[in-house]
Amino acid sequence: MPDTTLDLAAIGALAEEVLAANGCNAANAAAVARTVTAAERDGARSHGLFRIPGYVAALRNGRVRGDADPTVREVTPAFLRVDGAGGFAPLALERGLPALAAAAKKLGVAAMTINDCYHFAALWPETEALAGKALAGIACVNYAAVVAPHGGSEAIFGTNPLAFAWPRPGAEPVVADMATAAMAQGELQLAAGAGHQVPEGTGVDAAGQPTADPAAILAGTQLPFGGHKGSAIALLVELLAAAATGDAFSYEVAGDSADGGPTRGGEFLLAVDPAVLAGADAGERTEAFFRRFEAIPGARLPGARRHGLRRAPGPRAVDSALLARIRALAGPSGH
Amino acid sequence: MPDTTLDLAAIGALAEEVLAANGCNAANAAAVARTVTAAERDGARSHGLFRIPGYVAALRNGRVRGDADPTVREVTPAFLRVDGAGGFAPLALERGLPALAAAAKKLGVAAMTINDCYHFAALWPETEALAGKALAGIACVNYAAVVAPHGGSEAIFGTNPLAFAWPRPGAEPVVADMATAAMAQGELQLAAGAGHQVPEGTGVDAAGQPTADPAAILAGTQLPFGGHKGSAIALLVELLAAAATGDAFSYEVAGDSADGGPTRGGEFLLAVDPAVLAGADAGERTEAFFRRFEAIPGARLPGARRHGLRRAPGPRAVDSALLARIRALAGPSGH
Repeated sequence: MPDTTLDLAAIGALAEEVLAANGCNAANAAAVARTVTAAERDGARSHGLFRIPGYVAALRNGRVRGDADPTVREVTPAFLRVDGAGGFAPLALERGLPALAAAAKKLGVAAMTINDCYHFAALWPETEALAGKALAGIACVNYAAVVAPHGGSEAIFGTNPLAFAWPRPGAEPVVADMATAAMAQGELQLAAGAGHQVPEGTGVDAAGQPTADPAAILAGTQLPFGGHKGSAIALLVELLAAAATGDAFSYEVAGDSADGGPTRGGEFLLAVDPAVLAGADAGERTEAFFRRFEAIPGARLPGARRHGLRRAPGPRAVDSALLARIRALAGPSGH
Repeated sequence: MPDTTLDLAAIGALAEEVLAANGCNAANAAAVARTVTAAERDGARSHGLFRIPGYVAALRNGRVRGDADPTVREVTPAFLRVDGAGGFAPLALERGLPALAAAAKKLGVAAMTINDCYHFAALWPETEALAGKALAGIACVNYAAVVAPHGGSEAIFGTNPLAFAWPRPGAEPVVADMATAAMAQGELQLAAGAGHQVPEGTGVDAAGQPTADPAAILAGTQLPFGGHKGSAIALLVELLAAAATGDAFSYEVAGDSADGGPTRGGEFLLAVDPAVLAGADAGERTEAFFRRFEAIPGARLPGARRHGLRRAPGPRAVDSALLARIRALAGPSGH
C-alpha cells in the first residue's frame, strides 16, 4: 500500500490517543507520543508509529503499566536511580534527565540507571537531550536474547543498542545510535520478506552454521557486528544495562518479546561535562576536530543524516496500512 | 632467530636497567618495567619487551621526560585530573588509580583523565587494577592518526584502543582490550613482512581504494573494525581520549610516532561500583550470567586466554634478536 502523509502534530495526537485508549494515563501517553513524534520528525520510521502496535500489545496483555509513576532517587551526589515502576521508559527518562544533567554539571561526571522499565524507542533522544545541555551522554539498554557471542551460536545478548552524543556549540550534536547486533531484527525481517540475502557474519542458522539467508537467521541466531570486537562491545552493553543496573539480563526476558512489544529491563546512562573535565577551551578544539572530520570526502558524522531529515518542513510520509492498523487500535481492545 | 627464555624477574630487571640507562629515574623505570613484565607474564608479547626500543627512542630524542613527577588533583569529588608531566603513563596511572577507586566506591561512579603523558602499553593493566578492587573500569587513549573514518580514506583516528574490565568475585575479571582499528599496526607489519593478505575492510591504499595487501594499506590508510558501527566506536574513543581530556587529537600528534615510540596525549578512565549502583546481590546475578556465557560452545569471555597464559609457570619465551637489541640499548646512546 502506498504512503500517505501526516503532519507532526497529527502524528503526536494519534499516538497519544491510541496509547490513552489502551490504558496509558495522560503523562505516559504524552511522553511516549513525544518519542514517537521525534522519530517520525527525523525520518527514523522504524522507531516511530511503526512501534505503536508493540506498545499497545504490551499494554493490552497487562505486561506494562500505563499508569506508571516513575520516581527519582539520589543515591549519591553522582548517581541517580530511577524506579520505572513497570511503565514505558519515556516518562522515567523525562523525570530523571534534569537531575542527571545537574549532577554532571556539578561533578563533571554522573550516572543514572532506570529499573523496571520497558524501553521501546531509539536511544538518541536521551543522549541528544543531554547534549542539548552541553553534556556528552552515553546510554545503553539490552533486549530479549537473540544474539550469540562471537564464536558461539546460542543467544545470550539482546540487540543491545549503544548511543552517545557529543555537544557542538551552536550546532546540532554528534549523535550515534547503533544496535550491537550486526543487523537490527526489523531489517532482517524486511530482508526475509523481500527474499534478499544478507552479508556474511549477520547470523547463523538453527544448526549454528553461517548463512546469508535472513529467514534462516531468524530461525537461528543473530551475531554481533564486527566479529570478536563487536561481540566485546555487545558484552559491555549487556553489563552496563543489566549488571550495573541490577536489572534483567537479556536471557532472563527472552519471552517478553513474544507479543512484539518491549522487554522489561534497565537502562544505563552516563553524562560527562567536557567543560568541567577539559576546561573552557575544549569545546573550540573539539569543534575544530569535527570540522576536520566533516571535510573528509565520503565520511559523515553520526547523526548528520537524521538531523538533515529533521529540517525538512511539512508533513511526514506514513505507511497507509500501518496507519489504518493504528487507527483501529484506538477502538476497544476486544481482548 | 629462535626464541630464548627469560624468567619474569629477569625481564623486569632488564627493562628497568635499560630505561634507567636512557634517562628514566627509578620511579619511572620501575613503573614502566612493571607493565612490560605484566605483558610478558600474560603472553602479550606485542606490549612487552617488544616496546622497549620505542620507549628508549622517545627518551633519547628528548620527547619524553624520564624524570616526570605526575601529580593528582581532585577537581570535584567525582573527577580527578592527573598531570602526567610529560612522562610515560605507568607512573601517572599508579599514582591516580587509588584515588579514582576511592571516589568510585564512595559515589558509585568517578572519572579520571591523565594529561600530557605518553601511553605505550596495553590498556588492560589499568582496567584490571580497578576490577581488582571490585570496580568496573573503562579506559581509552588515542594515537597518531592512521585510521580513516568509515566511508573516507583520510586518517583522523589513531588505532584508538578501548578496554573494559568487570569484576568477578573470587575469579579473574572479564577484561576486553581492543584497538578500534580493524587490525593493529603491528599485525599489519607482520602480515606485510610475511607476504600475507589481510581481510577486506582492513584498509585502503594510497589512492583510497580497498585492498587486501598489507603493504599497500601501510602506505595508505587503515580503517576501523566493523564498518560504520566500529567507526562510531573509534570516534567515541577519540572524543573521550581527546575532547574529554582536553588533550591532543590524533591528527595533532601524527608526527610523534616517527621514531616508533608513543605519542603525547591524554587518557580517559571511568570507574563504576556495581555494588553502589545495583546493590549487593548484583554480583551473584552477574556471575550467573558469566557462567551461562562460558557454557556456550565456541564462545570465550574476553581476557580468559590471557589469564590462562598468566598461570603458566616458569620463564617466558623472548625473541633472541630482540633481546640482543635491547641489551645493546643499555649501553651509551651514541646519540
